[in-house]
Amino acid sequence: MSAGCRGFLHHVFDYETAKTLVIPHFGVGIVFRFTQLLVVLYVVGYVCVVQKGYQETDSVISTVTTKVKGFAYTNTSDMDPRMWDVADYVIPPQGDSSFFILTNLVVTPEQTQSHCPELPNPSTVCKDDCDCIEGYNDPRRNGIRTGLCENFSTTVKTCEVFSWCPLEVDTRLPKKALLAAAENFTVLIKNSITYPKFNFHGRNILPHVNSSYLAHCEFNRLTDPDCPIFRLKRIISEAEADFQEMAVKGGILGILIDWSCDLDWWAGKCLPKYSFRLYIWLFFRFAKFYKRADGVEERTLIKAYGIRFEVIVFGTAGKFGIVPAIVNLGAALSFLSLVCKKKKYYIKSKSGDAQNLTVANIFIRCPLLQTGLC
Amino acid sequence: MSAGCRGFLHHVFDYETAKTLVIPHFGVGIVFRFTQLLVVLYVVGYVCVVQKGYQETDSVISTVTTKVKGFAYTNTSDMDPRMWDVADYVIPPQGDSSFFILTNLVVTPEQTQSHCPELPNPSTVCKDDCDCIEGYNDPRRNGIRTGLCENFSTTVKTCEVFSWCPLEVDTRLPKKALLAAAENFTVLIKNSITYPKFNFHGRNILPHVNSSYLAHCEFNRLTDPDCPIFRLKRIISEAEADFQEMAVKGGILGILIDWSCDLDWWAGKCLPKYSFRLYIWLFFRFAKFYKRADGVEERTLIKAYGIRFEVIVFGTAGKFGIVPAIVNLGAALSFLSLVCKKKKYYIKSKSGDAQNLTVANIFIRCPLLQTGLC
Amino acid sequence: MSAGCRGFLHHVFDYETAKTLVIPHFGVGIVFRFTQLLVVLYVVGYVCVVQKGYQETDSVISTVTTKVKGFAYTNTSDMDPRMWDVADYVIPPQGDSSFFILTNLVVTPEQTQSHCPELPNPSTVCKDDCDCIEGYNDPRRNGIRTGLCENFSTTVKTCEVFSWCPLEVDTRLPKKALLAAAENFTVLIKNSITYPKFNFHGRNILPHVNSSYLAHCEFNRLTDPDCPIFRLKRIISEAEADFQEMAVKGGILGILIDWSCDLDWWAGKCLPKYSFRLYIWLFFRFAKFYKRADGVEERTLIKAYGIRFEVIVFGTAGKFGIVPAIVNLGAALSFLSLVCKKKKYYIKSKSGDAQNLTVANIFIRCPLLQTGLC
Repeated sequence: MSAGCRGFLHHVFDYETAKTLVIPHFGVGIVFRFTQLLVVLYVVGYVCVVQKGYQETDSVISTVTTKVKGFAYTNTSDMDPRMWDVADYVIPPQGDSSFFILTNLVVTPEQTQSHCPELPNPSTVCKDDCDCIEGYNDPRRNGIRTGLCENFSTTVKTCEVFSWCPLEVDTRLPKKALLAAAENFTVLIKNSITYPKFNFHGRNILPHVNSSYLAHCEFNRLTDPDCPIFRLKRIISEAEADFQEMAVKGGILGILIDWSCDLDWWAGKCLPKYSFRLYIWLFFRFAKFYKRADGVEERTLIKAYGIRFEVIVFGTAGKFGIVPAIVNLGAALSFLSLVCKKKKYYIKSKSGDAQNLTVANIFIRCPLLQTGLC
Repeated sequence: MSAGCRGFLHHVFDYETAKTLVIPHFGVGIVFRFTQLLVVLYVVGYVCVVQKGYQETDSVISTVTTKVKGFAYTNTSDMDPRMWDVADYVIPPQGDSSFFILTNLVVTPEQTQSHCPELPNPSTVCKDDCDCIEGYNDPRRNGIRTGLCENFSTTVKTCEVFSWCPLEVDTRLPKKALLAAAENFTVLIKNSITYPKFNFHGRNILPHVNSSYLAHCEFNRLTDPDCPIFRLKRIISEAEADFQEMAVKGGILGILIDWSCDLDWWAGKCLPKYSFRLYIWLFFRFAKFYKRADGVEERTLIKAYGIRFEVIVFGTAGKFGIVPAIVNLGAALSFLSLVCKKKKYYIKSKSGDAQNLTVANIFIRCPLLQTGLC
Repeated sequence: MSAGCRGFLHHVFDYETAKTLVIPHFGVGIVFRFTQLLVVLYVVGYVCVVQKGYQETDSVISTVTTKVKGFAYTNTSDMDPRMWDVADYVIPPQGDSSFFILTNLVVTPEQTQSHCPELPNPSTVCKDDCDCIEGYNDPRRNGIRTGLCENFSTTVKTCEVFSWCPLEVDTRLPKKALLAAAENFTVLIKNSITYPKFNFHGRNILPHVNSSYLAHCEFNRLTDPDCPIFRLKRIISEAEADFQEMAVKGGILGILIDWSCDLDWWAGKCLPKYSFRLYIWLFFRFAKFYKRADGVEERTLIKAYGIRFEVIVFGTAGKFGIVPAIVNLGAALSFLSLVCKKKKYYIKSKSGDAQNLTVANIFIRCPLLQTGLC
């Protein structure tokens, strides 16, 4: 074999290893092993057990359906006696993850496209037609000005507008929520989730929950934590809010379902965790459209206050993965090799024998930090 | 220069390296190189090629719009002959990612706010007025009790309630879905996605798909995988469900669009992957409101069964990132340095020459595991 | 103590360290320290400062509510003068994160379930009844064929269908958007977010924004970046689109709110970043249902073009985490140890003393790469 070939083979297959020096010094050994133990505890205890650093993760995909139950009876001076059921107070009615329950409202019935005087306001009050410019359009007011100044009442004149008349008078909001009985309504939430990377499927209606239990149960953290039927009063109080206060002025309640789980076989079952959170909100306006016998289109404008419930499903699942496990182990190994790299200065002994040494100056040196500490 | 200064300069600029011992032992060299090769194969093969550990990741942002096409003709003893188009059976009609197609229904027309006897049930049957408590309100029943006991039919008397009368009789659900023809409806799904971190934009309607192809094509995994128009019958059978069965009792079908991609320049195009998944669901009630000539509000209550389609878009993109690449490489290096750290005990030879050694006891020692193995 | 026990104790507590050789060579030392400095700069500069590799991350959970303001006046030859407010042009009206603003439409009023001739088209034109097959149902056309061939106009005969008649003639789409004034509408967006892992809550309405500022402000990147009220014309032009063009043919505008933040105490406040993106869309059809005095159901079919606004909230928060910090540090350490592992061949000197060496061949060898470079 040629010299180059032999040199290459030696290069590849010669095994090289560091010469090490063994120091039978008990104190140094204790410190060394203790520091190694700390690193091992970090890897096993903190990274593995607490942070689960050896796991791969995946995000949840979810589908939610809801069903509200309950009805309310109202009888006020403003409105005829009325029975309200889900087709009346749930908007939209499809049972999505986000639904609004009407609790208070201002109704302006029998609006038609016509002319009427504006509501009195510093910018709408007028003395004669010159004060009202035809075609003027203020988004904060109620319609397009016609250029005429009309009597709003016996005491005040305002600019006339073309709009849905009569105009809404929104100071008539009831102080006590009209549908105060909504606090006793219940909502059934059905939620299916998937973690596609791990091919895991879950449902919030657990296998042991049968139809007869579902027909009568109600969610309670202590006695019935598996029942997916929630009484509105309870979940709003868990969010540290008052139902009647929210019902008057409107709000958003988040129903958060956390599906974060450990999917390894040694972990327990993967179950959803419910929590409730309040966000502030106002109102919205919608209309019901009708046609009169004479063909004129008419509408009932409803300024709706209520509580919007949003079911928000989130979660991260973890499962053992070789790549994250190796990465965390590798990082720990680097730190182990960092522990106490010592540099020794040898003082040549009288005999010149490298093995009979007198350790004159032992100190710990860390290549990165350049200090005398480790 | 002072002694301290010189010492510091030496400290910084002296180059120190481990003394190594070369053992020209072929067998040991083979084992050593083979173990190194395993580590390299793990890094290159598994971490890089299979798990793509060198990549940074990002989550998808998506927007979806849908359009259903098709109409159905019904003619039953219960209802007048009727033609149903999208404005009749798609709820809501806006073309969102989640839409419901009505397939079966129970219609209760001409309901008004009035009094009528409850539907017969063990809790509603009565003999005289004393059995019915005025104001009693059972959420599982149908209205507020008036305190009167009335004839429901010639054979039974029930408590009277104030409610939307006549009450819904929901045992009249057709056994065969009213809109069974819905299985031949089609839905066009347009989906645009973005991976903001990588500034990547994608659309499920690919550049080569033009309007004439779109006017006639239909999704088929083998012949037309790029066509974004799906026939309902086909996608429900792909989800291993039966359309007619779902159409009678209602259900949710998830249309999952997976945009997980490798965005590096050497990878192929980033294309969406479609799959379909069935979830169970029930029904919901909604109403159409009308006004009679006499001004009385009337409604048609509809108990709607059908299939809710939810387009769920998800995905994680990966692209080469220096930080994850270095982290995985670093972990592999730690393992390489772990391979076969040998410790040799030297037996001083007669001559005292460290280089003429007799290897008396070679064994492999791993600092972490403290065993005789590596 | 037995020999085995003593051997074990030595094994555990003996401290071993590599013998190192110090070479007081300034040039080699400079190269060595410079390479170490590069690695440190990578770790501190790139990994820590730029990529924030030491952070743990979490995904955002969000809730959004919107409120549109503005009204428009239309007066065309096709329709009566009409004032449009939010209850007329916002679909759906609930103030969700996704809402559609009607800008152009084709109205087909007073449709009833009846018979009428199809719209002329190569597949619908006929000469006599034999050309029209009873019960034939083409999803791209308008109804179920009755088998009769009727006069559509004085010049053409088409197959008669059972459908909602009169049929919609959708070539009547106005060239200029009917509700062109919609460009001056404004939308107030309220957004609350949570990062559950870090227990961080944020709102896009910042603490210093009070009701009087909200009553008059408008979002402007330079002068009013904190105002959550957006004029439609401005946000569509920021998305590099033309409002009037979109208003005629319809489109989707994404309002993207990016909440990616650094949540460490030394970072600044966590604020949302707004951007706008255009996606193409078409139209949808919906109907308003009425009842005539004679009890016949009537509907007004509306083919609605407009702009669908979707508020998309996304973001990833980062906060210092021990595990990712250690992992990145460990990777860097592995690379440091990789730097210039030198292998020296010792040439036995005449005296045989290992410490009096002549460095005959110094080259840098990297265990992985097997080349002469490092």
